[in-house]
Amino acid sequence: MSHTVEILSVGTELLLGNIANTDAQTLSQGLSELGLNVYYHTVVGDNPQRAREAVAIAKKRADIIITTGGLGPTCDDLTKNVLAEAFGKKLVFDEPSAERIRSYFAKTKRPMTDNNLQQAMLPEGCTVLANDWGTAPGCAFQAEGVHVIMLPGPPSECRPMFQYRAKPYLQSLSEGVIASHTLKLFGIGESAMEAQLRDQMNAMSNPTLAPYAKEGECELRVTAKAPTDAEAQALLKPTVEQVKALFGSKVYGVDVSSLEEVVEGLLREKGMTIGVAESCTGGLMAKRLTDVAGASQVFLGGIVSYTNQVKAGMLHVPQHLLDQFGAVSPEVALAMAEGARKALGCDIALATTGVAGPDKDDWDNEVGTMFVAIATPDGTHVRPLKLGSRPVRARLRTQTAHHAFDLARRYLTGLPYEDGAV
Amino acid sequence: MSHTVEILSVGTELLLGNIANTDAQTLSQGLSELGLNVYYHTVVGDNPQRAREAVAIAKKRADIIITTGGLGPTCDDLTKNVLAEAFGKKLVFDEPSAERIRSYFAKTKRPMTDNNLQQAMLPEGCTVLANDWGTAPGCAFQAEGVHVIMLPGPPSECRPMFQYRAKPYLQSLSEGVIASHTLKLFGIGESAMEAQLRDQMNAMSNPTLAPYAKEGECELRVTAKAPTDAEAQALLKPTVEQVKALFGSKVYGVDVSSLEEVVEGLLREKGMTIGVAESCTGGLMAKRLTDVAGASQVFLGGIVSYTNQVKAGMLHVPQHLLDQFGAVSPEVALAMAEGARKALGCDIALATTGVAGPDKDDWDNEVGTMFVAIATPDGTHVRPLKLGSRPVRARLRTQTAHHAFDLARRYLTGLPYEDGAV
Repeated sequence: MSHTVEILSVGTELLLGNIANTDAQTLSQGLSELGLNVYYHTVVGDNPQRAREAVAIAKKRADIIITTGGLGPTCDDLTKNVLAEAFGKKLVFDEPSAERIRSYFAKTKRPMTDNNLQQAMLPEGCTVLANDWGTAPGCAFQAEGVHVIMLPGPPSECRPMFQYRAKPYLQSLSEGVIASHTLKLFGIGESAMEAQLRDQMNAMSNPTLAPYAKEGECELRVTAKAPTDAEAQALLKPTVEQVKALFGSKVYGVDVSSLEEVVEGLLREKGMTIGVAESCTGGLMAKRLTDVAGASQVFLGGIVSYTNQVKAGMLHVPQHLLDQFGAVSPEVALAMAEGARKALGCDIALATTGVAGPDKDDWDNEVGTMFVAIATPDGTHVRPLKLGSRPVRARLRTQTAHHAFDLARRYLTGLPYEDGAV
Repeated sequence: MSHTVEILSVGTELLLGNIANTDAQTLSQGLSELGLNVYYHTVVGDNPQRAREAVAIAKKRADIIITTGGLGPTCDDLTKNVLAEAFGKKLVFDEPSAERIRSYFAKTKRPMTDNNLQQAMLPEGCTVLANDWGTAPGCAFQAEGVHVIMLPGPPSECRPMFQYRAKPYLQSLSEGVIASHTLKLFGIGESAMEAQLRDQMNAMSNPTLAPYAKEGECELRVTAKAPTDAEAQALLKPTVEQVKALFGSKVYGVDVSSLEEVVEGLLREKGMTIGVAESCTGGLMAKRLTDVAGASQVFLGGIVSYTNQVKAGMLHVPQHLLDQFGAVSPEVALAMAEGARKALGCDIALATTGVAGPDKDDWDNEVGTMFVAIATPDGTHVRPLKLGSRPVRARLRTQTAHHAFDLARRYLTGLPYEDGAV
C-alpha cells in the first residue's frame, strides 16, 4: 500500500528565517529511503489557531503526519495539544517519561522547573518515543486512518529521534527491510553521471538508484527493499558492482564520508604519514584532514605559504623557480610538495598553488588556474587544473583540495593519476 | 495595514530531501526585516494537481504569496501555469524577457533549446522581475486582493532576485523605508545577551531589536522604519550606540561579516601582517583568514604543527618546554606564537594548542582544554580556555579560532585582553 506523508514543522524561528528547516530535509531523506512518499512540507509558527488549521489540512491529504518542534515547555507543548485535540485524544501523564526527564536534569546538573514535567503529558494510548538526546519525548499513534508521529525540533534531537525511534516504527508500516549503500564519486560531473545512468535508473524499481550532487563531487545511493536484510543486501550487491565497473576509478568509496577520510584510512592501513603545503587553498586541506577525529595518527602538519618568502624560506622552493616560472606554475607546485615532504618529515606531501580570485595574479594567470602536486617515496606528480572563473572563491578552493586528495588516493591505491579524465 | 505572507516552494528535490529549503529561510529573514509577517511555508513537488491545491489554500489564508522554484523548462514552468490559472490570467509572450534569455545563452556560450523561450511566457499585465543571475525571469502581479511574486528556485538566483527585485516591489506595499544594522558580538552567550536585553526588546517597536545566535558568537539586528532613509538612520543611531555601550568591547563590529574580516581590516589600516601557528585548530585559522578575498595583503602564512617534531623543528618551540609542560600548555602556546612570528616574519602571530577530542591527550588534559596565544611587537599574551567536552569537535575548533582572532582584534584596537570575561 502506498502512503502519503506530510511533514508539519512548528516553530516561529523558521518563519522568521532564524534557521533553515533542516529537520524537514533530514526526515525527507530518510522517508524516501524507506520508500515513503513525502508530498508536503508545511511550516507554521507557535500559534495554536494556525497550527490547528494546518493539522486539519494535513489530515485530509496525508495518511502519515510527522511533526517536528513545538514539544517543549517554552511553546506550551503546542504540537501535542493540537494533535491530540484534532484526533479526539486526551493527554495523560506518563510516569516513565517523567522519570527520564528528572534523571536528564540530574545528569546535566541543571535545575528542573515544574513546567518541564508537562513534557511527560502524552496522548493516551500512544507509543512513547523515548528521547535520549534531550528532554521532550516524542510519540506516535494511529487514529482515523492516520499515523501521527511527533518529534522534537532541535536538529541534534530530531535527527537521532527519527533514526532510532521513528524509523523502526515506520518500517513496521512497510513490509520488509530497506537497505542502502552510497557510492562516492570524484572526477565526474553530476549531469555526466546522470546521463550515463538515466535509462538504467528509470528502468529500475528494486533496487533504486538516486544521484546526489555534493560540492564538487557526486553521490549515488542504491536502495533495496526485501523481506530480510540479507535479501536486501543480495539485491544491492550486483548494482553496486555494476556502478563501480561503469565508473571505474572515479568511485572512491562506498559508505564513506569524504575523500580525506579515505586517504587517511589508506595511510593508516599502510602505516604512512602525510603533510601539506598550501598556497591557494590557504589551510583548507590541513583543516579538512584534521576535521577527522584521530587525524594525528597520520597527519604531521602543514605549511600555508601565502608569500614567495614563505615558499622559499620554509618550503625551500628554489628562488630561481619562483623568478622564472612564478608561484602559480607546475614547477613551483612540485617544489612545494618536495619541500613539505622534507621539512615535515612525512611520507607523502600534497601541494596546491593557483589563483582563487577575485583577480588574475601578477603573472596574468586567469582565476581558476591551479596546480596540485604530490611528492611520495616513489617520485612526484603534478596535475594542472583550469577550473574557470565562474565558481566562487570558496568553490575553487574546495575543488582544488578535492583534486589534491584524489592524487593521494590514487597513489595509495596504485591507480594511474589520470589527470586528463577530470 | 498588516499583511500575511505565505512562501510556497515548488520542487520535488525538496521533498526528497536532496536540499534544504534555504530559499524559504532567506526570504523569511528579508520579509521580517521589512516588517511583513510570514505565517506559512509550504513545499509541494513538481505536480500540477497538488500545486493547484496548495495555491488554493494559500489564496485563502495569505494576501502575499511568494513562490520559489518551478519556473524553468525542466518542470514545464509549472508554477507560472498554476498561479496564472488560479488567478484567471493568461500567459503572454514577453519579448524583452526572450531577448534577455537569448543573450544569456550567447554570453555563456551554451546552446539554447526552444523550450528555454517558454520562460518568456508571463502572466498578462505582470511586473517582470528581470533575472540577471540565470535564465528564468520572475514576475509579480496583484489580483483578487492578493499579491503574487514568483522567484526562481536555485538559491544563487533566488537570493539576489529577492534582494534586488522583490524587495523594492514589497517595499512599495509598505509605506516608508526599512533600514537595519547588525551588531556582531563575541565573548557573550546568546542567553546572557537576551537576558540583558529582554525588557528593552519587548518595550521597543521602532526600531526593533532581534538577537541571532551564530556558531560561537551572537548578532543583534536593529531595524527601523521611517518615511525616509535619513529618518530611519536617525532612529537606529541611538539604539546602536546604546547596545554598544551596554556590551562594550564584546561588540566587535557593525555590519561586518566575521572576526577575521575585522582583524584583516585593522591590519590593512595599520600596514601590519599576520601569521598563524596551529595545533588543535589544524589549519582552520589560516583557512578562515584566506576565505576573505585580498587576504594576501596582510596574511603571510601559517604552520600547522600536529606533532611535537613539527612544533620543535619548524616553530622552534624549545624541546624542554614540550617535555616539561606538554604540548597543551600556556608555555608551548606562547612559544608557538613567538616561533611563528619569527619563522614567518610577520608582525603578529596567533597560536592555538589544545584537545579537540574525542579523547583526553597523553597528559590527561580534558577535551576542551585549549590555549590561544598572540605574539606582537609589544609582547605576548596567552588566554586559557575550558570549553568543556559537550560541544562537538568542529565547534571546539571554531570557538578556539574565534578566541585567537579576538586576541588579535583586542591588540589591534588597544583593548585589554579581558580573558576572564569570556
